Amino acid sequence: MPRLHTRGEPEINVNKVDFAELTPPLEQFLAQAAYLQLTVFETLAAAVAGAPDTESKEAVSTAAALSLKKHHGLIAEIARKRKDAAAAMAPYAGRIDEYRSRTIGSNWYETMVTSYVTAGLLDDFSRGLASGLPGESARRVSDILGSDDGHRLIADELRKAIGADPRLASKLAMWGRRLVGDTLLIARSSLAIPASGHPDEARLEPVFTELIAAHTRRMDALGLTA
Amino acid sequence: MPRLHTRGEPEINVNKVDFAELTPPLEQFLAQAAYLQLTVFETLAAAVAGAPDTESKEAVSTAAALSLKKHHGLIAEIARKRKDAAAAMAPYAGRIDEYRSRTIGSNWYETMVTSYVTAGLLDDFSRGLASGLPGESARRVSDILGSDDGHRLIADELRKAIGADPRLASKLAMWGRRLVGDTLLIARSSLAIPASGHPDEARLEPVFTELIAAHTRRMDALGLTA
Repeated sequence: MPRLHTRGEPEINVNKVDFAELTPPLEQFLAQAAYLQLTVFETLAAAVAGAPDTESKEAVSTAAALSLKKHHGLIAEIARKRKDAAAAMAPYAGRIDEYRSRTIGSNWYETMVTSYVTAGLLDDFSRGLASGLPGESARRVSDILGSDDGHRLIADELRKAIGADPRLASKLAMWGRRLVGDTLLIARSSLAIPASGHPDEARLEPVFTELIAAHTRRMDALGLTA
Repeated sequence: MPRLHTRGEPEINVNKVDFAELTPPLEQFLAQAAYLQLTVFETLAAAVAGAPDTESKEAVSTAAALSLKKHHGLIAEIARKRKDAAAAMAPYAGRIDEYRSRTIGSNWYETMVTSYVTAGLLDDFSRGLASGLPGESARRVSDILGSDDGHRLIADELRKAIGADPRLASKLAMWGRRLVGDTLLIARSSLAIPASGHPDEARLEPVFTELIAAHTRRMDALGLTA
């Protein structure tokens, strides 16, 4: 089971079985997951400069480096298939860039929530889908996606900020809620399209229900209402 | 001799002897060099999002990761001295952040020139000073600073851009020239302050002459007039 371990919170699990049937073809999966992961890095990396102090800069730059390592792991999987990673990702860039610009946040704290919430959701999602990949790829990709992404460092930054200014809590809770819709849409657009051309809503529902439940637990771990 | 190897160009050397006499105390050197290196990372990292295509994003994100690795190497040296890295860097943050905001550039190509030119100058400078560090630190820090920083990837991006739009060359050459003054000032402010309180201009001159000569060769390697 993919796990999101949050300090002092029970592990968050999503049910792989629900996801595996929605897994797109390997190259498509890798290209989209790699570009989404690059987006997670971009958001964290851009937030280093805005961090309130050098301690926060260290936390955010470490999380950025871990995200980039995951991205490069996925890129290496594309290269194993003798495909050019940049070319493979290009068709997804426009849509995902637009998603990123809509979700980046208007200040450093919102951006931290974005990193925590969207990386968490997308990671749960990608790890669920990875279980449906063929052969050895499933394990290798799960290992890459399951590696430490530094989300605990980001959660600690947010707890520190909310502790210092409790009025932040309601603003950030609202921002966290706004992120869910856009993130579920970008996730949905990454799924395998059935022959009918219409996603099977009955199949999607349990997947999205699980993602939202995991999101709620992640917000709880910050003391925020989802 | 510290070397900057630029593709198709002779190696660029600076004379360690001139620099070593100006080396500040170890902790001060490490804190300033680490924060400057973080700045190099921040600029590259922020430029990933603005890259014109996924291939450029890969080049810039790889260079960003290599810069961050150097930063973390320097942070580890501070930790060896049982000092808190964030606290050690804090006194230099304001001045260096201001330098970064003045030199970030107004478009992606200028930012690439900034990464190439200022990282090159600061790297030559820090590697020169590192030769004056005590004991084993000199070698260890030189190894960290001398590791690959991906400047060849940035130079290739710039050559590609200038090749596609030759009018860029004169604009970027002018931007490169503007960067030198601010970068030499920030370098100068990192030097050991002699007991007199005034830096010895006669000692500084050969150091700055060498840095500018290396800068000129670096601009030449892009086909730009320094």
